[in-house]
Amino acid sequence: MNDKKIHLRERDIPDHWYNLAADLPNALQPPRNPGSLEPLRPEEMTPLFAEALVEQEISSERWIPIPEAVRAAYSVWRPTPMIRATGLEAALETPAEIWYKWEGVSPAGSHKPNSAIPQAYYNAREGVRRLTTETGAGQWGSSLSYACAQFGLACHIYMVRVSFNQKPYRASMMRTWGATVHPSPSDQTETGKRILAEDRDNNGSLGIAISEAVEEALAGEDVHYALGSVLNHVLLHQTVVGQEFRKQMEMVDRWPDVMVGCVGGGSNFGGFAFPFMSEVLDGGKATRFVAVEPAACPTLTRGRIAYDFGDTVGLTPLIRMHTLGSGFMPPGIHTGGLRYHGMAPLVSAAVEQGIVEPIAIGQLDAFAAGLLFARTEGIVPAPEANHAVHGAILEAERCRAESRKEVIAFNLCGHGHMDMSAYDAYLGNQLQDVPHDEQALALALSHLPKVG
Amino acid sequence: MNDKKIHLRERDIPDHWYNLAADLPNALQPPRNPGSLEPLRPEEMTPLFAEALVEQEISSERWIPIPEAVRAAYSVWRPTPMIRATGLEAALETPAEIWYKWEGVSPAGSHKPNSAIPQAYYNAREGVRRLTTETGAGQWGSSLSYACAQFGLACHIYMVRVSFNQKPYRASMMRTWGATVHPSPSDQTETGKRILAEDRDNNGSLGIAISEAVEEALAGEDVHYALGSVLNHVLLHQTVVGQEFRKQMEMVDRWPDVMVGCVGGGSNFGGFAFPFMSEVLDGGKATRFVAVEPAACPTLTRGRIAYDFGDTVGLTPLIRMHTLGSGFMPPGIHTGGLRYHGMAPLVSAAVEQGIVEPIAIGQLDAFAAGLLFARTEGIVPAPEANHAVHGAILEAERCRAESRKEVIAFNLCGHGHMDMSAYDAYLGNQLQDVPHDEQALALALSHLPKVG
Repeated sequence: MNDKKIHLRERDIPDHWYNLAADLPNALQPPRNPGSLEPLRPEEMTPLFAEALVEQEISSERWIPIPEAVRAAYSVWRPTPMIRATGLEAALETPAEIWYKWEGVSPAGSHKPNSAIPQAYYNAREGVRRLTTETGAGQWGSSLSYACAQFGLACHIYMVRVSFNQKPYRASMMRTWGATVHPSPSDQTETGKRILAEDRDNNGSLGIAISEAVEEALAGEDVHYALGSVLNHVLLHQTVVGQEFRKQMEMVDRWPDVMVGCVGGGSNFGGFAFPFMSEVLDGGKATRFVAVEPAACPTLTRGRIAYDFGDTVGLTPLIRMHTLGSGFMPPGIHTGGLRYHGMAPLVSAAVEQGIVEPIAIGQLDAFAAGLLFARTEGIVPAPEANHAVHGAILEAERCRAESRKEVIAFNLCGHGHMDMSAYDAYLGNQLQDVPHDEQALALALSHLPKVG
Repeated sequence: MNDKKIHLRERDIPDHWYNLAADLPNALQPPRNPGSLEPLRPEEMTPLFAEALVEQEISSERWIPIPEAVRAAYSVWRPTPMIRATGLEAALETPAEIWYKWEGVSPAGSHKPNSAIPQAYYNAREGVRRLTTETGAGQWGSSLSYACAQFGLACHIYMVRVSFNQKPYRASMMRTWGATVHPSPSDQTETGKRILAEDRDNNGSLGIAISEAVEEALAGEDVHYALGSVLNHVLLHQTVVGQEFRKQMEMVDRWPDVMVGCVGGGSNFGGFAFPFMSEVLDGGKATRFVAVEPAACPTLTRGRIAYDFGDTVGLTPLIRMHTLGSGFMPPGIHTGGLRYHGMAPLVSAAVEQGIVEPIAIGQLDAFAAGLLFARTEGIVPAPEANHAVHGAILEAERCRAESRKEVIAFNLCGHGHMDMSAYDAYLGNQLQDVPHDEQALALALSHLPKVG
């Protein structure tokens, strides 16, 4: 039989990260200080981030070396397998081959530790003793907790209160790795206290949780803040995924005709797709790159490219990206990891420059795809990953209609073990497609900051 | 750096299962009909089990071929990695090497699909259209649901009601793979209805759930029953674990000085350890085999070897094994998979014949071990697997005290993603060691069936 899974050896864990900024036809535009509107200076970032991470954030070097200690920590679960979805192919009666990268084998269950590990490493190396962060669905918070345990850092997590209540197992996991988890808004920060004083039952939001984590980081001496997506250095770290996938495709003598990933902040999609782009940009290869977002939060398909805040309350620098407006509140879909008003500047630029095709799908299609995948391939995907599965299925159905034997590749970025209540809701016909509010979107877009 | 994980290729998935019955110095004694007390005839088993499985159950052949379709289904997650616990070694400051087999990478999250897949395969091949089973903690029910989805079988699961309520995600997982899950006692069977009529709030037990699953299987034409541990054919299927581990040990030029596993029904321990035993029995190698059970349910360390029923209500044949008495009710520890009054006859025989050393530990030690493992190695183990981790830690501490550089091997049989509430209870100081009731044990043992 042909191998279903393609494994690499540990020596095949990449020794450099790949920086798409070096190869984009049109250069990235820098973040700006929201007061002066001037390009942000590196020293404005170091109160929150390790110097090595700030260097990576602004770098235009193509290859950035991965420290040996980070590669050793990666070796707990990397390289991850590439798997051929033979069961799904059969169910779809498609002539196409479907291959996926399986990132759910990490201890935290997703691709997120690919960046949590180096973020914890660099901070520990620079003498930081505690990291703070926010988390929504909980994948990022779990991953940072795990990474901090590996490098002897304390970890304080502000978890959106509604998620904290809905997904108690995620917080348990963070505590198991030694982190402290506060439902946000909390009584730990001035921001949290102020909000609780106005509304004791406030459910929280990512914006509030970011404010709390940033406030704690700024108030302490040896404390930094960590972000799980959007920023250039986070996408940089995630390129280990696509680099491994290239080697694995080479091992079976394939090159993908189309690569599919889900997008929220953009890090799993970017990490998967970017390492394939330079050959496509220089015309040596032809690959389509498809980014799948939820129709309820259609940043790439309905947003505008503009400078906007990364958070809801306006504490961050201004970032040039696709945005629905930092005041836009997406409806409560079961895909916490994709409910973000903005997008990684690198992914936004790749869309703007015609390299990436975005599509938006409803959550019913996403869960139908996840269920078919679970029954034909075994693995139960995270709700976020179901968007990528559906995107791959659309391509496989096109190949069937056109009788084309293409190679379809997608990133299965995490498992759904902590999200089974969402599957239950789907199986019990309790889910529906939730459109975004057009008026609210227009309003949020009308409030974008004026820059230049 | 030395590799942390040792991977095999798919062609290394074993092509035979290993049957310890062929090599035991003293032969196994057969199960008996509880009425006649005569040895059970194969045709008394075929109303419940596929003929191929009954043949395996009574076989004394050393090697039994694995069908290609089963190997192909195994290839979704097998071979599983062998990993060196370098982080745990460092934390324990032990000169020993600690290696573990990681079975939690299966879609269901444990070793259980190793037997669920062939059970579903043989039943489907013989024209069966539905399988029934019971499940307690839910690992077996998930695995059989997954396996039935692969071979087009319907799957009906009776899940102990208290677990059904405590672990809703496990039932969601079973439904995601297409199974029907009934909290037991249910209104689907005469047994269930009778019990509910007496006590509407009955919490259920494995014994009741077995009765319901067996009743449904006996009542239908194309329906069989499946069991997830204890029986010879189940332990046979699990020997893929130990066979792979042998190859992986060879790849790093090691042979284990001691092998550790947790025991409830005995299948993960047997599957891991049996393939190493023949060399030890013929004196070519020296390996100690340590079986770790919960002190609250001390079958091997406090039970008696006798013929007893496999279930609580007395529907099964009589099996010669270590037993606490089929009427013994273990206290409600957070280790549903190890709360069984009996033991696999093959494991019992190996203990009786001096090949295996049993030890019993409390759940506080088990969770302390699991927490240390999660923080040093990343993976959050299932509560059952924590017993094996603690056993390995005891050996590593002995090696430190004796300055011995031994090779310690253990089976990490599953992840704890569905069991985070138990970790929460431990971290919140809500857990305690629960001794079994000595009087109840004496009473249960006094009611063992009289055989010969």
